[in-house]
Amino acid sequence: MAKVQPRLFVEDSLGAGLNVNLGNSHAHYLKNVLRLKVAAEVSLFNGRDGEWHGKLNSIRRSRVVVDLVQMVYPQPDDVGPALMFAPVRRGPMEIMVQKATELGVTHLQPMITEFTDVVRFNVDRMRATAIEAAEQCGRMSVPLIEEPQPLNEILAQWPNGRRLLFAAESGSVRPISEVLWGFKDHSAPDQWTIAVGPVGGFSPAEHGLLRNLPFVVAVGLGPRLLKAETAALAALSCWQSVLGDWENRPIDRIHQ
Amino acid sequence: MAKVQPRLFVEDSLGAGLNVNLGNSHAHYLKNVLRLKVAAEVSLFNGRDGEWHGKLNSIRRSRVVVDLVQMVYPQPDDVGPALMFAPVRRGPMEIMVQKATELGVTHLQPMITEFTDVVRFNVDRMRATAIEAAEQCGRMSVPLIEEPQPLNEILAQWPNGRRLLFAAESGSVRPISEVLWGFKDHSAPDQWTIAVGPVGGFSPAEHGLLRNLPFVVAVGLGPRLLKAETAALAALSCWQSVLGDWENRPIDRIHQ
Repeated sequence: MAKVQPRLFVEDSLGAGLNVNLGNSHAHYLKNVLRLKVAAEVSLFNGRDGEWHGKLNSIRRSRVVVDLVQMVYPQPDDVGPALMFAPVRRGPMEIMVQKATELGVTHLQPMITEFTDVVRFNVDRMRATAIEAAEQCGRMSVPLIEEPQPLNEILAQWPNGRRLLFAAESGSVRPISEVLWGFKDHSAPDQWTIAVGPVGGFSPAEHGLLRNLPFVVAVGLGPRLLKAETAALAALSCWQSVLGDWENRPIDRIHQ
Repeated sequence: MAKVQPRLFVEDSLGAGLNVNLGNSHAHYLKNVLRLKVAAEVSLFNGRDGEWHGKLNSIRRSRVVVDLVQMVYPQPDDVGPALMFAPVRRGPMEIMVQKATELGVTHLQPMITEFTDVVRFNVDRMRATAIEAAEQCGRMSVPLIEEPQPLNEILAQWPNGRRLLFAAESGSVRPISEVLWGFKDHSAPDQWTIAVGPVGGFSPAEHGLLRNLPFVVAVGLGPRLLKAETAALAALSCWQSVLGDWENRPIDRIHQ
């Protein structure tokens, strides 16, 4: 089976003639897991300067230096929806962050609702999960991960023109794809937030509040009670397939 | 927050005047985790006889007896797609089975493809995962989990009239929702199988084979390389929202 070139996210600027020092964890991965030698090729991206091919210049104990060779893909605009969710236990939380990254989310906004049990949310750990997912899925950016905020504060500062797609567990709503097709061709893809409730759902008061806000679009995800992370991924998938970038195809990184 | 009544899958027949002996793990859960007492109410389903309310009659060391009181929901027809997938590592495999159950899959068919690394697939463990997911999401059936079979054998015995929705990583295809809307209102929902490839994708030969079969519908899942379990859940969500049962709403189990 063809090997895909290692692909790493870095904070450094990328450009012609520059070199990049990779830190401990990347160095360990390249040296000890992949057993790469000097002159092996890697791809680097930082979310700003496009994707670059480089060659390993030196391999030391806890440091690997990469000489940048050329830009292979220019940086695309990062369009896509934001995701608003109540923090859940660590396992499902990592699944949600990993899959939301694969599904092209630009911002992850944890929210505290009335029925939110788990209020601890480790931004650094979730950022590491998102970086790993971005490296693996070929995307050239890492979603921004915000600090948790109470739902009512988020709603009070809601930006003009942004829509909030709300997966409603109760009340009368149309299925998500049918609703989204109504917005096809007259809605900017970077002006949407998708919200899914906590394990116990939104409270009746929150439901009422959300259903009455002018920027909220309530949709249904069918007759089964989806777990919070399943609801997030289901809503995101439907959104991407109708309003997102699923017209595009993966870059063929193996055969280039 | 309102408590949802415990909901358990059993193999026994359910009917008026019958009682059911719950085995070790259910007994432990009701006694030691939920700390229920005699006369507490539970819901039981078996995938055939509808959902029944019952009361705990006796609670012994490793056995709990439930007296059935009344049927609360009749057994619905189990319509929905099948899912064909290459076995992956245990963690992602459990995620795929759990979420596929929530997303209404009727059959799970593991397949062995050219690039399938993990050939071990524990049917019993996966069935336990599917049962737990069915109990929690309110569905009244458990998907059937088949033994792994080679892809070419599965294709050689393909049933007449069944379509195979194939998430293609390469080649020219339209996005999934657009393709599925073309089948809206003239395709039986129980006549679809969704196929996602293994970690390394389908081989070029398998790709060519699948693209040329008359019952295959190839679709795209966008520009990012989705993990196998993400691709399965994304395709299933899009399918359910267009051709499935997402017109229906969850039963309100909390406020009934």
